[in-house]
Amino acid sequence: MRILILGGDGYLGWPTSMYFSKRGHEVHAVDNYLRRRAHEEAGTDSLTPIGSSLRERARVWKEVTGLEIGVTEGDLVDWDVVERVFTEFRPEAIVHYGEMPSAPYSMKDREHAVFTHQNNVINTLNVLWAMAELAPEAHLVKLGTMGEYGTPNIDIEEGFIEIHHKGRSDTLPFPKLPGSWYHLTKVHDSHNIHFACRIWGLRATDLNQGVVYGIETDETRLDDRLLTRFDYDEVFGTALNRFCLQAVIGHPLTPYGKGGQTRGYLNIVDTLRCVELATLHPASAGEFRVFNQFTEQFAVVQLAEKVREAGEAHGLTVRIEHLENPRVELEEHYYNATHTKLLDLGLEPHLLSETLIESMFSTIERHRDRVIPDHIMPSTRWRPNVAQPAAG
Amino acid sequence: MRILILGGDGYLGWPTSMYFSKRGHEVHAVDNYLRRRAHEEAGTDSLTPIGSSLRERARVWKEVTGLEIGVTEGDLVDWDVVERVFTEFRPEAIVHYGEMPSAPYSMKDREHAVFTHQNNVINTLNVLWAMAELAPEAHLVKLGTMGEYGTPNIDIEEGFIEIHHKGRSDTLPFPKLPGSWYHLTKVHDSHNIHFACRIWGLRATDLNQGVVYGIETDETRLDDRLLTRFDYDEVFGTALNRFCLQAVIGHPLTPYGKGGQTRGYLNIVDTLRCVELATLHPASAGEFRVFNQFTEQFAVVQLAEKVREAGEAHGLTVRIEHLENPRVELEEHYYNATHTKLLDLGLEPHLLSETLIESMFSTIERHRDRVIPDHIMPSTRWRPNVAQPAAG
Repeated sequence: MRILILGGDGYLGWPTSMYFSKRGHEVHAVDNYLRRRAHEEAGTDSLTPIGSSLRERARVWKEVTGLEIGVTEGDLVDWDVVERVFTEFRPEAIVHYGEMPSAPYSMKDREHAVFTHQNNVINTLNVLWAMAELAPEAHLVKLGTMGEYGTPNIDIEEGFIEIHHKGRSDTLPFPKLPGSWYHLTKVHDSHNIHFACRIWGLRATDLNQGVVYGIETDETRLDDRLLTRFDYDEVFGTALNRFCLQAVIGHPLTPYGKGGQTRGYLNIVDTLRCVELATLHPASAGEFRVFNQFTEQFAVVQLAEKVREAGEAHGLTVRIEHLENPRVELEEHYYNATHTKLLDLGLEPHLLSETLIESMFSTIERHRDRVIPDHIMPSTRWRPNVAQPAAG
Repeated sequence: MRILILGGDGYLGWPTSMYFSKRGHEVHAVDNYLRRRAHEEAGTDSLTPIGSSLRERARVWKEVTGLEIGVTEGDLVDWDVVERVFTEFRPEAIVHYGEMPSAPYSMKDREHAVFTHQNNVINTLNVLWAMAELAPEAHLVKLGTMGEYGTPNIDIEEGFIEIHHKGRSDTLPFPKLPGSWYHLTKVHDSHNIHFACRIWGLRATDLNQGVVYGIETDETRLDDRLLTRFDYDEVFGTALNRFCLQAVIGHPLTPYGKGGQTRGYLNIVDTLRCVELATLHPASAGEFRVFNQFTEQFAVVQLAEKVREAGEAHGLTVRIEHLENPRVELEEHYYNATHTKLLDLGLEPHLLSETLIESMFSTIERHRDRVIPDHIMPSTRWRPNVAQPAAG
């Protein structure tokens, strides 16, 4: 299958590109290096050393495996780039990771909130128009986030919910309560993609993904130069990955607030399998399908405890230090999210284990000299001092 | 009260500016003349002659009433404009009409879809940031649209719905099924405003308005130079206004498809009263409140019949000609939308009557020599030929 990977230089985009390439698909990856530039500006970096460019990584991939991954260095907000890629590559599936993926980044200030909207919403509009005009039979596999739902007091369903109301009923999009400007752009995308499916008959699968952890996949293990990036800073790092790094360098683990925030989590190797399952079982023409993509739910304090236990077994001294929560979110809440559709397609989850955490410790230890500890603690606050917060 | 009117040069913005000014409020109006420019590009125009600029209209208003309306000619997408207006005027209420308001305009092509997103979503983000930083106690009265809801098979509630699901319940945002890129931007705005209220404690009322009809208000009647604009073209015109004009010039009335599309409608004088009621009874700090702003529901064919009857009473020969529907929408569907919150605040509706339709005929006849008939018929299609529409 001809598979286009948008955001192919990212934490998930690069392993996904290799994964499909290894399995005999024709892969073309696009990236504008937004994440690399954001790190350069902030003085942060991936823990793992990654190739100097996507083109360089594809060159190493060819050297190691003999397989080609096509590369376009360009910005999806630029229609000329999107039109050229669709015209030349003629994708049958489009895996769309190509967005600014950080909540704290989007919350920094007005400019970052506006940029996140312009980047994510406009580039997805461009992709939808390219599909309508140049690849109407292709299947969009779009990375969304479980964070679109927020923490409602009812069970979260997969994209749609049957509502019974005043003696009538309908199956409607699940209401969204996103928690940052970044998460809002994903909600906007979901509405836009759903509409494009309704009016143009496009096919799309929205993968509402939980928090991904892990560093290695079968393909990254082939050669150290094929490693994916690993972010642990306050902007691009996520809970479990950051906790593991904190444990290794002797930094306290830092749950925000009470730490009762519960979310869905999954191993990076399950991300690749989920994306493959969605791609190999495309949505029907006109269908907008939503899968909740995670394998287990954890509260943040549970994760911290797991990392502490694994750390102690590994010979590390691990301390947990709750921070004042920089975000506005419930710290204790009901959370139960359905996630059966990918299991029904054949997903066999790799659940979180002490062994996995210890193997993450080992990889982190190998690159320990690259750690920049200055940007681990949160500095971006959801409620800037200028406003008078009044509501809870 | 110091009331900022964004989009103060528009069909509703200008009458709203005069309405508040006449009632003793301090009014400042902002507009970038987007609508005037779109008309110039398309070769269309308002039926009614309007002043050469917002500044000129404010000058006439001063001449006629002795009252001042402040004016800023500028684009809300430009942060410098928003920051300057908020800093200098220090609004207590912001009535936000300042968006690209046309579904067909947004559906023309990729450029128009993207522009509509950039214009509407970004300017509203700018307004939210200006409120957070410069006017945290002010109240945003934002014009949304009933079109955000689409046509679900259950009763439409005012912004939120109590959902009972698997033995639990929560009151959540009403699911949205908007029918054009324009309507999507309003959905995006609603989510963004709701979030700003939750995290920053801002106050906002989202007025999900039905289709507005009518030409005159108490203030426009004071002097012919104070008339508001009246659009009847396929891009900016709306059903009832266009039908009235078609009846006067002997053009067949043109319901799209079967004409069973049911929507909420209201008289322009009720719009002004609704906006006043929302403004005088502000939302609480942190509250995101949604009012469904319309007074009656009609199917399009019912409106056409009413105009035909009024036309015949007025001595006109009126023919109804169903067009192939250029949009993708249900032409027969359940529709029952709650709209009690504005009534509870004191709204006394001006319902649609033969007298009102006849008075619209008279105003249209006065300006009949200005009619440009070329752009009445629809040319923008929701399903361009390039795509292979597959779903219903």
